[in-house]
Amino acid sequence: MNRIDALSVNTIRVLSADAIQKANSGHPGLPLGAAPMAYELWARHMNHNPADPDWPNRDRFILSGGHGSMLLYSLLHLFGYGNMSMEDIKDFRQLGSITPGHPEFGCTVGVEATTGPLGAGMGMAVGMAMAEAHLAAVFNKENYPVVDHYTYVLGGDGCMMEGISSEAFSLAGTLGLSKLIVLYDSNRISIEGSTDIAFTEDVAQRMESFGFQTLTVEDGNDLEAIGAAIEAAKADTVRPSFITVKTEIGYGCPAKQGKASAHGEPLGADNVKALKEKLQWPVEEPFCVPKEVYSHFAGLSEEKAETEAAWNVMFAAYCQEYPEMEEMWNQYHDKTLGQQFENDPEFWARSDKPDATRSLSGKLLNYMADSMPNLFGGSADLAPSNKTVMAGKGDFSKETPEGCNIHFGVRELAMTAIGNGLMLHGGIRAYIGTFFVFSDYMKPMARLSALMGLPLTYVLTHDSIGVGEDGPTHEPVEHLAMLRSIPNFHVFRPCDSVETAAAWYSAVTSKETPTALVLSRQNLPLVEGTSREAQKGGYILSDCQGLPEVILIATGSEVSLALKAKEVLEAEGRKIRVVSMPCMEVFEEQTAEYREAVLPKAVKKRVAVEAGSAFGWGSYTGLEGACVTMEGFGASAPAARLFEHFGFTVDHVAETVRSL
Amino acid sequence: MNRIDALSVNTIRVLSADAIQKANSGHPGLPLGAAPMAYELWARHMNHNPADPDWPNRDRFILSGGHGSMLLYSLLHLFGYGNMSMEDIKDFRQLGSITPGHPEFGCTVGVEATTGPLGAGMGMAVGMAMAEAHLAAVFNKENYPVVDHYTYVLGGDGCMMEGISSEAFSLAGTLGLSKLIVLYDSNRISIEGSTDIAFTEDVAQRMESFGFQTLTVEDGNDLEAIGAAIEAAKADTVRPSFITVKTEIGYGCPAKQGKASAHGEPLGADNVKALKEKLQWPVEEPFCVPKEVYSHFAGLSEEKAETEAAWNVMFAAYCQEYPEMEEMWNQYHDKTLGQQFENDPEFWARSDKPDATRSLSGKLLNYMADSMPNLFGGSADLAPSNKTVMAGKGDFSKETPEGCNIHFGVRELAMTAIGNGLMLHGGIRAYIGTFFVFSDYMKPMARLSALMGLPLTYVLTHDSIGVGEDGPTHEPVEHLAMLRSIPNFHVFRPCDSVETAAAWYSAVTSKETPTALVLSRQNLPLVEGTSREAQKGGYILSDCQGLPEVILIATGSEVSLALKAKEVLEAEGRKIRVVSMPCMEVFEEQTAEYREAVLPKAVKKRVAVEAGSAFGWGSYTGLEGACVTMEGFGASAPAARLFEHFGFTVDHVAETVRSL
Repeated sequence: MNRIDALSVNTIRVLSADAIQKANSGHPGLPLGAAPMAYELWARHMNHNPADPDWPNRDRFILSGGHGSMLLYSLLHLFGYGNMSMEDIKDFRQLGSITPGHPEFGCTVGVEATTGPLGAGMGMAVGMAMAEAHLAAVFNKENYPVVDHYTYVLGGDGCMMEGISSEAFSLAGTLGLSKLIVLYDSNRISIEGSTDIAFTEDVAQRMESFGFQTLTVEDGNDLEAIGAAIEAAKADTVRPSFITVKTEIGYGCPAKQGKASAHGEPLGADNVKALKEKLQWPVEEPFCVPKEVYSHFAGLSEEKAETEAAWNVMFAAYCQEYPEMEEMWNQYHDKTLGQQFENDPEFWARSDKPDATRSLSGKLLNYMADSMPNLFGGSADLAPSNKTVMAGKGDFSKETPEGCNIHFGVRELAMTAIGNGLMLHGGIRAYIGTFFVFSDYMKPMARLSALMGLPLTYVLTHDSIGVGEDGPTHEPVEHLAMLRSIPNFHVFRPCDSVETAAAWYSAVTSKETPTALVLSRQNLPLVEGTSREAQKGGYILSDCQGLPEVILIATGSEVSLALKAKEVLEAEGRKIRVVSMPCMEVFEEQTAEYREAVLPKAVKKRVAVEAGSAFGWGSYTGLEGACVTMEGFGASAPAARLFEHFGFTVDHVAETVRSL
Repeated sequence: MNRIDALSVNTIRVLSADAIQKANSGHPGLPLGAAPMAYELWARHMNHNPADPDWPNRDRFILSGGHGSMLLYSLLHLFGYGNMSMEDIKDFRQLGSITPGHPEFGCTVGVEATTGPLGAGMGMAVGMAMAEAHLAAVFNKENYPVVDHYTYVLGGDGCMMEGISSEAFSLAGTLGLSKLIVLYDSNRISIEGSTDIAFTEDVAQRMESFGFQTLTVEDGNDLEAIGAAIEAAKADTVRPSFITVKTEIGYGCPAKQGKASAHGEPLGADNVKALKEKLQWPVEEPFCVPKEVYSHFAGLSEEKAETEAAWNVMFAAYCQEYPEMEEMWNQYHDKTLGQQFENDPEFWARSDKPDATRSLSGKLLNYMADSMPNLFGGSADLAPSNKTVMAGKGDFSKETPEGCNIHFGVRELAMTAIGNGLMLHGGIRAYIGTFFVFSDYMKPMARLSALMGLPLTYVLTHDSIGVGEDGPTHEPVEHLAMLRSIPNFHVFRPCDSVETAAAWYSAVTSKETPTALVLSRQNLPLVEGTSREAQKGGYILSDCQGLPEVILIATGSEVSLALKAKEVLEAEGRKIRVVSMPCMEVFEEQTAEYREAVLPKAVKKRVAVEAGSAFGWGSYTGLEGACVTMEGFGASAPAARLFEHFGFTVDHVAETVRSL
């Protein structure tokens, strides 16, 4: 390793150790071990422009082992991303800093994805590589490879143990995503000790089974070997590549090197000192970067800027030669796309016959696809049931990357991470689909959608005991509660065509919030009175004269039931209001006045009707209300029989109201 | 295939097709394709006794592809399990039947596990095989292999695509679980079409990378080849085995064979007819089983009974020779074990200094381990943080299967399925652990714990923004809501040593309900007034004279905050009650009188204080109360700073009370 390279690598190590020591918190093991591969990649192989972190054709880099955040922050500081200052580095893990404990998308310029939950970055990287492959097929013209970049992801043993990496990489292999390059920081140490205790598999062989080219770098400090492996990875234009880089966790810190204790706690002042000695670091004070290192990185950043400049020239020529492609490019990247449906009568058309909301959703999706070419999505092997296929838009495959329908396979968790990756990449409006009950598998990555503020759309069908014969393993009960409780996550459960349109409109025009569409398997009756008020999340669907005695609040398939119960109760002389509440979270965003108008505080007798858990309804029904909801798991029987069995009948709703 | 074998296999096929046709719902594809392997296994290789389905040393069989339930029900009927009658078969997928859509543990005699969510059975099978390996090491003596059985699991492409199978099998390979035998029903068809669209990996190579022996049966109708593969699998005493059996989905039904349409819908009356013709089935009426088939299976059942009889003789001799082992055996299998702590002052001892509830939990676990030898568990690579190690109890490994501490690796989902498998096996009281935020990964299998009624214990530490610097990806917010909303799931969030003891006591004495212990990372102050009333889920911790004006309801780390706020408010002349609510679900199980005494309806001013989402608190705080809770995600900073930042201060709680 030449002098400046060695000094640069050690700068990353020392900065990381210093910042973690000052914060008295953090994970030095990964930055110390993986600094060489990260440096080699960022300095010599990765196309990126620190001065323009949003350059669409930049190579993507995801640190899947997010706990090693100081590795990334050191690079961002040295390359001058977003003016990340030494003060920011000193503020590592402090409130409001741009250097939080794990990398956070949207918080720090240059951070491509929020990582920390292990394996997540692997899935998101596959999503980014899929976006690249698709957009390249759509946009590139001869001599104009306007979309032509790599996706690099760096992760360790933990990421490889998590099942999501198998799911995502199996799909990546199937799709032949040759521009996906995985750097596996193989240090053979986990928190509980040597990986031998739980992880003796042949990781490279697994990756080979998925269809990856596998490469090995025997010495993680050998920049040349790392560089050669990266170039060999690039040279394979058929398969994605997996590079095992054998490293030592906590490299350079004599007391911790190769030990589990290097992973997740500060080295300690003495060990930081010993590290600096071992690395022959010129100064003892913390947070000192040699001038020559700064100027070396400044030089690199200038070179990087030239790469984008060349692309800009090409892109300008492309736009001139293909003005229709430029228009399309702008359309794909237009975050306001979808707003054209706001006043489109066809989009909002009321269905004239009973239908399942999943079918209504499928029709809307197909309608939208005509004018939203950037819609790209699919299902975890349930497309015919989820109604998520865009007719005539082709399948996305190795042979046909221009196709828009993705076959994710039975991999709900990876699908969700991939959905996040598609949205992070840009140029795409992604959706994913499965049975609602399997949102369980999605949860860790759904949380990341919300945390990153990605407006990914979740099409979740078969939303209740309406599933019927498949029984309790397939019948969601607590899933509405699970998703509603996630911050910054919208859950729509529409009752008819108009509300389904409102749900989709909200989803595709959302800027920073993921949206779940929770849809029925079974046909739902036509509902009178539904309207675009549904866009407010909750609204008065059917009212009485004056202040109601009782308010029925219902969603989805139970809205028509509430309306029928109202009729019965009105015949008894009761004053009943029915509120349809397709989305609690959007309702909560409305003004206090509006919410009071819909649910006046003075009316304390409120009954929620929903074929799911009562959990979470208490804030609407209060101490004096009641819930007609599911108290336990579902059962296996024809759906109509189940609705009766579990009390979703006009009689039971009416009786519940009378009992208040 | 000889005549009676062929007739037996076809009986399974025809019964399955008939039942699905009558129910007008179900999945014929798997039973038609996999009938030969299931028949060969159950008839010739599996040690089981239909007359005693609880025989502890029976071989276990799990149908991981639970949608193929009619395959299993047909076998149970033919072997005479639990008197499953033809009427039961005719009642397939009807309310209250013992033949629900997917196999349900506890509902149907002979069903070893509830399956349906794909991959779940693979994980549970690994758990069962781990239980067998551990118990064999503990109990077997020379000439007395009292624990000596195989675990068979049958699944398809969907199970292999789910990440959980990689997680579980990677661990199974590491542990050298040679008595685990996987039958892979490889039909190369998924719901969206050929597996080529999403799943071109070399599955056997993947399994080899995990350390499995891999075997292939080229023709899924070749009983001899299937049998030979099973015997080869048994013969390998070092590695688990994976048998790829190439089948045709929907075999025997000319119009559907080899097609996705065979998977999940009835064949149709015409196709059932065609199936019977193709299989040269002797009768056209549905639900007819040839007498000779019944008598063939009766003969097999008699043979099977002899295997158990022989084991019984051996076990009796074992008990005679090793009376201390018999005692231990009974202890391991005693479901009331744990009740010895009920009046054990040491177990309930009050800590005399501030401590983290995770540490208190660790101490209790170690205390319990002394008199609960059947405790068996561990963490997903976070044992030092989760405090889940039982000191002196050894590590469970290939070399030391008698060890009690399991290293699960970073595999939360498989760990949970394995925990379920351990409990299903019997003889073990299992626990699993990880950071609370990663309960997200566990959710699909946690739901199955609850659905199956398995008292598995979840040790979930680092329970709030108290996590501090690791930031929002590691800080649970909505996770209490997620777990509380699962039916039949207890969530304890204790505030001190006494409540932590109550939580563990409830967990280890639970009969049919899983329990999560949600524990703090940070030290919590000593709390005066906590008591064994905590076993009621919620209780008055600190009261006022007469009816309170305001009730503060708090859990875990916020209990001491509520007590301090009470002091401040009392100084202002307000009458305040503090209720500690360590477990909402157990509180809800108390009498109405008790609940009214703790939370009188007349007191409408109630404030919940919990460092988690408000979601779910509304049923206690009503329309006039308030919540001091988290409104969004956490942040990265020292924990004390975060509690202040997010309003968990005496001032803010007091101000919230005043504002009511």
